[in-house]
Amino acid sequence: MSELAKRFQDVRARSGALCASLTAEDHMLQAMPDVSPAKWHLAHTTWFFETFLLEPLDDYAVFHPKFRTLFNSYYQAVGPQYPRPRRGLLSRPPLSAILEYRRYVDTHILALIEAMSADDPRQAILTLGLHHEQQHQELLATDIKYNLSINPLQPAWQEAAPESPPAPPPRWIRMPGGLVEVGFDADGFCFDNETPRHTVWLEPYQVRSTLITNAEYREFIEDGGYDDHRLWLSDGWAWRQAHNVQAPLYWQHREADGWSEYTLYGRRPLDPNAPVTHLSAYEADAFAAWAGARLITEPEWEVAAPTAPAAPIDRLAAEMMHPRAPDADADAEGALQMFGEVWQWTRSAYLPYPGYEPLPGALGEYNGKFMCGQWVLRGSACVTPPGHTRRTYRNFFYPHQRWQFTGIRLARG
Amino acid sequence: MSELAKRFQDVRARSGALCASLTAEDHMLQAMPDVSPAKWHLAHTTWFFETFLLEPLDDYAVFHPKFRTLFNSYYQAVGPQYPRPRRGLLSRPPLSAILEYRRYVDTHILALIEAMSADDPRQAILTLGLHHEQQHQELLATDIKYNLSINPLQPAWQEAAPESPPAPPPRWIRMPGGLVEVGFDADGFCFDNETPRHTVWLEPYQVRSTLITNAEYREFIEDGGYDDHRLWLSDGWAWRQAHNVQAPLYWQHREADGWSEYTLYGRRPLDPNAPVTHLSAYEADAFAAWAGARLITEPEWEVAAPTAPAAPIDRLAAEMMHPRAPDADADAEGALQMFGEVWQWTRSAYLPYPGYEPLPGALGEYNGKFMCGQWVLRGSACVTPPGHTRRTYRNFFYPHQRWQFTGIRLARG
Amino acid sequence: MSELAKRFQDVRARSGALCASLTAEDHMLQAMPDVSPAKWHLAHTTWFFETFLLEPLDDYAVFHPKFRTLFNSYYQAVGPQYPRPRRGLLSRPPLSAILEYRRYVDTHILALIEAMSADDPRQAILTLGLHHEQQHQELLATDIKYNLSINPLQPAWQEAAPESPPAPPPRWIRMPGGLVEVGFDADGFCFDNETPRHTVWLEPYQVRSTLITNAEYREFIEDGGYDDHRLWLSDGWAWRQAHNVQAPLYWQHREADGWSEYTLYGRRPLDPNAPVTHLSAYEADAFAAWAGARLITEPEWEVAAPTAPAAPIDRLAAEMMHPRAPDADADAEGALQMFGEVWQWTRSAYLPYPGYEPLPGALGEYNGKFMCGQWVLRGSACVTPPGHTRRTYRNFFYPHQRWQFTGIRLARG
Amino acid sequence: MSELAKRFQDVRARSGALCASLTAEDHMLQAMPDVSPAKWHLAHTTWFFETFLLEPLDDYAVFHPKFRTLFNSYYQAVGPQYPRPRRGLLSRPPLSAILEYRRYVDTHILALIEAMSADDPRQAILTLGLHHEQQHQELLATDIKYNLSINPLQPAWQEAAPESPPAPPPRWIRMPGGLVEVGFDADGFCFDNETPRHTVWLEPYQVRSTLITNAEYREFIEDGGYDDHRLWLSDGWAWRQAHNVQAPLYWQHREADGWSEYTLYGRRPLDPNAPVTHLSAYEADAFAAWAGARLITEPEWEVAAPTAPAAPIDRLAAEMMHPRAPDADADAEGALQMFGEVWQWTRSAYLPYPGYEPLPGALGEYNGKFMCGQWVLRGSACVTPPGHTRRTYRNFFYPHQRWQFTGIRLARG
Repeated sequence: MSELAKRFQDVRARSGALCASLTAEDHMLQAMPDVSPAKWHLAHTTWFFETFLLEPLDDYAVFHPKFRTLFNSYYQAVGPQYPRPRRGLLSRPPLSAILEYRRYVDTHILALIEAMSADDPRQAILTLGLHHEQQHQELLATDIKYNLSINPLQPAWQEAAPESPPAPPPRWIRMPGGLVEVGFDADGFCFDNETPRHTVWLEPYQVRSTLITNAEYREFIEDGGYDDHRLWLSDGWAWRQAHNVQAPLYWQHREADGWSEYTLYGRRPLDPNAPVTHLSAYEADAFAAWAGARLITEPEWEVAAPTAPAAPIDRLAAEMMHPRAPDADADAEGALQMFGEVWQWTRSAYLPYPGYEPLPGALGEYNGKFMCGQWVLRGSACVTPPGHTRRTYRNFFYPHQRWQFTGIRLARG
Repeated sequence: MSELAKRFQDVRARSGALCASLTAEDHMLQAMPDVSPAKWHLAHTTWFFETFLLEPLDDYAVFHPKFRTLFNSYYQAVGPQYPRPRRGLLSRPPLSAILEYRRYVDTHILALIEAMSADDPRQAILTLGLHHEQQHQELLATDIKYNLSINPLQPAWQEAAPESPPAPPPRWIRMPGGLVEVGFDADGFCFDNETPRHTVWLEPYQVRSTLITNAEYREFIEDGGYDDHRLWLSDGWAWRQAHNVQAPLYWQHREADGWSEYTLYGRRPLDPNAPVTHLSAYEADAFAAWAGARLITEPEWEVAAPTAPAAPIDRLAAEMMHPRAPDADADAEGALQMFGEVWQWTRSAYLPYPGYEPLPGALGEYNGKFMCGQWVLRGSACVTPPGHTRRTYRNFFYPHQRWQFTGIRLARG
Repeated sequence: MSELAKRFQDVRARSGALCASLTAEDHMLQAMPDVSPAKWHLAHTTWFFETFLLEPLDDYAVFHPKFRTLFNSYYQAVGPQYPRPRRGLLSRPPLSAILEYRRYVDTHILALIEAMSADDPRQAILTLGLHHEQQHQELLATDIKYNLSINPLQPAWQEAAPESPPAPPPRWIRMPGGLVEVGFDADGFCFDNETPRHTVWLEPYQVRSTLITNAEYREFIEDGGYDDHRLWLSDGWAWRQAHNVQAPLYWQHREADGWSEYTLYGRRPLDPNAPVTHLSAYEADAFAAWAGARLITEPEWEVAAPTAPAAPIDRLAAEMMHPRAPDADADAEGALQMFGEVWQWTRSAYLPYPGYEPLPGALGEYNGKFMCGQWVLRGSACVTPPGHTRRTYRNFFYPHQRWQFTGIRLARG
Repeated sequence: MSELAKRFQDVRARSGALCASLTAEDHMLQAMPDVSPAKWHLAHTTWFFETFLLEPLDDYAVFHPKFRTLFNSYYQAVGPQYPRPRRGLLSRPPLSAILEYRRYVDTHILALIEAMSADDPRQAILTLGLHHEQQHQELLATDIKYNLSINPLQPAWQEAAPESPPAPPPRWIRMPGGLVEVGFDADGFCFDNETPRHTVWLEPYQVRSTLITNAEYREFIEDGGYDDHRLWLSDGWAWRQAHNVQAPLYWQHREADGWSEYTLYGRRPLDPNAPVTHLSAYEADAFAAWAGARLITEPEWEVAAPTAPAAPIDRLAAEMMHPRAPDADADAEGALQMFGEVWQWTRSAYLPYPGYEPLPGALGEYNGKFMCGQWVLRGSACVTPPGHTRRTYRNFFYPHQRWQFTGIRLARG
């Protein structure tokens, strides 16, 4: 079997594995419009392969004619989309049919891979489809977490007890700035939004070696950070007031027990050493102001990333989907926790790089049309699939969104 | 086994039977806040027995401590309620646990029945619980219909093909009016809102022998009834404009195929002879104005009901959950279709009868607190369970609601 | 000058007098969609005469072609309406132009009156127009009150200090019930909704001689009435929770000063003897439950009204637009405060009387189309214009509305 | 009189002059939450001087104690603010009192100026206050325009007939890019957000010499630009769909007359040569995509600005508050219409410059807290007051806002 076929099978299998502990009922959940049911993720990632690779084939029979609309996310060029906020109402097709859909499309894709020559341009679409599925694997994890969290029974996705070692003391790493190059230009895959590689001028700056911890963030709360308007952006203050926000998503305070946090492993006492996560950009920015620093910018982050230890960019303990502190013997020089713990809000708007060109056709809708109103996050998270991390990766969300594993990387100067 | 035990088992079994064709995923659906998931109905009806009959027992161990809140509908006196619009998000407890909950409570209730003396006052609560469950059986049918209807795949609850005979020509039945008695005073069960029996003065009036048919309603549409403000109540016109209503719920028009209607048996061509159903009170009232008549009032309906044929008050073909025309050889004198087809909107507000007293305690919340803003419907519907129909029965909904099997009974004079 | 001409001039003059203390800027205010700017009331009442009496004349030149739309309230048959919630944005036409419009139409109407024979059917429309203007005079008062009340400067409509004598002790008046006649059948004017006079059967009941006072209502508050769900209708409880209602509109509590009330004469300490006012029907109903009584019904009220003292039905001190207690020497037998203080919420829905027929044409929209969702209020208020009170008068508002002078008349039995 | 005193008087006088043609009623208008009543602008600009310069004085008596709250815009550090969407409900204080307030504060400020030494640090606050008032003069113009435009009578702010000469053909001006300096570092006043001056790297680019005209934009419409999702940002498409946008604000199309445009001089036929204006950033971006170009970025704009003709940066015909085409004999080399016509949406998010520090204290709320979610606009507009234009000026609005004089400057490369 070709390497591509092997990779295809591995990536596809991981989606199923993520959902293994869920019942068919759990697969239905859509607890807010931002999240999607697990079942829908499983179908949509399959739809992507079917739509962009199989449908153009002369002799391919679509699995179900209605799926083209039901599982289209936002590709206007492909046609109408079933309304996003109602995805949780699709009891039919049942989960069993979705799993059959996956098998059907897998069989045809594997046959197609078999038939492709080494320079077949469809290899690029297939690879894009795999990265697309990996993005949805991350969403599967964050959406499952949100969907289960709102249940009063507080069910756990899996049973396990994540533990964090003590966090090493933070350091400020000096970066010289100057003319730097950012963006992707290596071999291999990247999304279109990481290109073109281009020049940026940076003033000298300092980057904090570690992420902000739960203990530090709790201090911000106890110091009245949520009630001091001077720390907040105007939009952030309005958001905080409108929703009466007083702590990160999933945090809960009870007189008797202190702070706890809902995790994929159930609710547990707050781990002071672990990185704080599930923050809006507004909270991250307010914290930075309180700490006398600021959020890092996108190019600053990218230039600082190579100072990270040479350890594998993928999370060491990929099986544990919860962020944690660095090992006690972590490299004493460079930046830590750049990858594999939590995405780091930057103080950069998600905008096109100079000379950016989206992909042609419907696939051009993948990234370009979202370059408005969102903030860039850099790094990767404990739920990012192996092989899906890149130094030039640009993640993006609206500043009020916090169901992703988001956290804080400070800079100053 | 006592008769009460037998009746308990029969009623309880029917709830399960209604859901037999649904998957666990289907049981989750809540497509709008007005409807509840089938799973929730199954749990809540069980909660009613547990809360009002088992919890007061000294030696009863509750099935699950969180169920008291999760499956409380609106009984403030019992305690807080899980928010109604989020009932569809309870993937846990799974359906299997709900079914186990039903068995657990059934066992204890049967034991309690066994232990009760003939004059045990708890018999009244048990009977109320059975009528409560029957009400939810009707809701199960209407909610399942709504929940499946919004799925683009248009799944059917069951496979069958309801057919309607030609409707007999309508007649106007003259009623003398005068001093009449309305309300319940027979032996047996009734809800508190049907009491006390009391005197009402009625002017002479006429009642139409049959319900309005789909064919008649289609004529109203084709005559521009939805666009003629003069026919509509002010609130009704605002509702029609805000939601761009142009036909009854579940009706659909396609150039090629004409009108069709979604039923529990899937989408099928409109049956011209069947009673029109799934109308708001606004539509019913506008139709009446267009027809040069008016909706019947509540006491007018109750006085006219005994003119109906002596046939069993329960639907003849109880197994068919779709309304249909009367048999061709139907009684030529009295009112037809008073029961067992569609609930009939009256031009009466749902208000307390003179001298009305709600039940004491939490059960007093059953009816009294809803006597505001709703309209009374009379009769019963094709989905009303056997043994649940009474001439004095007062059903009530807000005038804009139309997912129940609602229809039109005209009066004049 | 004819008597009709005289009456026309008197009624028209009174509208202007009500606004005499307002600036042109005050005339613009529309602090919520339910209220209209004073300027708009002045224009709309004029529009009524122009539209229904002058426009049909062959030789009449409309004052301004756009006014037909701008000042149409809700007459669909007349044509489109300028959107109600945006009436406060009409800085043009300026107040001066509206006053000119009034003079222009007055001149033409007076000429028309001059020309009408004694049996001219247009006299009925003219009379309707005068009653229409009187209704708007009452709205002018309540809308001015609301519009000024929301200003942090708390300006007074006029300077004066209403004072209330001690309220006489309440009595329960026994009424025999039986077959009674209600509705209008005297000479003179009435609205169509007061007809036809018809028979009603009433059970024996008791009516409280006086209105509920501020002191009594304060007791309800202090007894936790706003926090006891058992007292409230379901819709009422939802309304109370959604808006966090804790007192009547215009009441304010300050630690240092106790309760105060905003009046047309500015904010002043709560008068314990005066009738409580500016309540929703929900609050009135909850108070009645707390007091172990109930709200009176519409026919009960009408039958009890003649027990009131023979004093003029119009308020004795019509110039004082604030409710007050009855005089100490008030009649010791009959019901007091039936008229001229506050409208009394009844426990009756606003529905058509048996055999009710709306007026033909556009004027038929005056009353009939609103017979849905509203509650009847009976009596009249301190702001009801002289000559506008009738024992058969049916006022109606939605149960949540409380900017009118609404109050509580209890009944029992 | 000192020069500063003279400038103070001139700026203050201009605010009054802008409102000279408005009635007191017009001064009340707030037709949407984004705009403020003219009266409120007149008061708030006065409040700024009173709060930041007079209140700190020992012997100053505030004009009215409630004004501190009533006319505070968004300065949390100063205290609570009267709710923005309700500014149009302040009939009191009347306009006459606001004008008196202006005279009172003017007198005291002039006395203060008299008393200040040449190096008094309060001169900076005074200057800031004057620029603040000039910003509000621009808002006065745009808000008056919006407030009058929604009136069905379509009143004009002033009578006049703006006319535009034919637009010269557009050219593409080549800019070399490279390391450039942007931001303010000259003598004189600037806002804090224009600092610090800093280095930016730019790729080579081309800038279009002229603004997009009404004729060009009409072509975009006629080519189906509003219906082609491929041209739009995702947020923009959602906005266009939600509001059914089909043309710039103020444009109207009638079969008989073609396109017209509401202006401060009333509604008039669309001037094909004038720059298109009153666009959202979404529309500007979609037009650029349609034209095969892109919006210019903020530093690109700033670097291109000096190529503009040496003509005075202030609009030549400052008295005409409507954009128009350049003169036929306009400089043939550099960029035209950079200033004085319409603000130009850039493809840059409004973010802090590297090293940006807001002013200390409450005045720090002037700019910094808004650096989120907004887009930068550059240049100035026909309503920008004389003396208020700077090459480094950063204007900012949310991308959906279009009641400002906004327009399109294209770039490419």
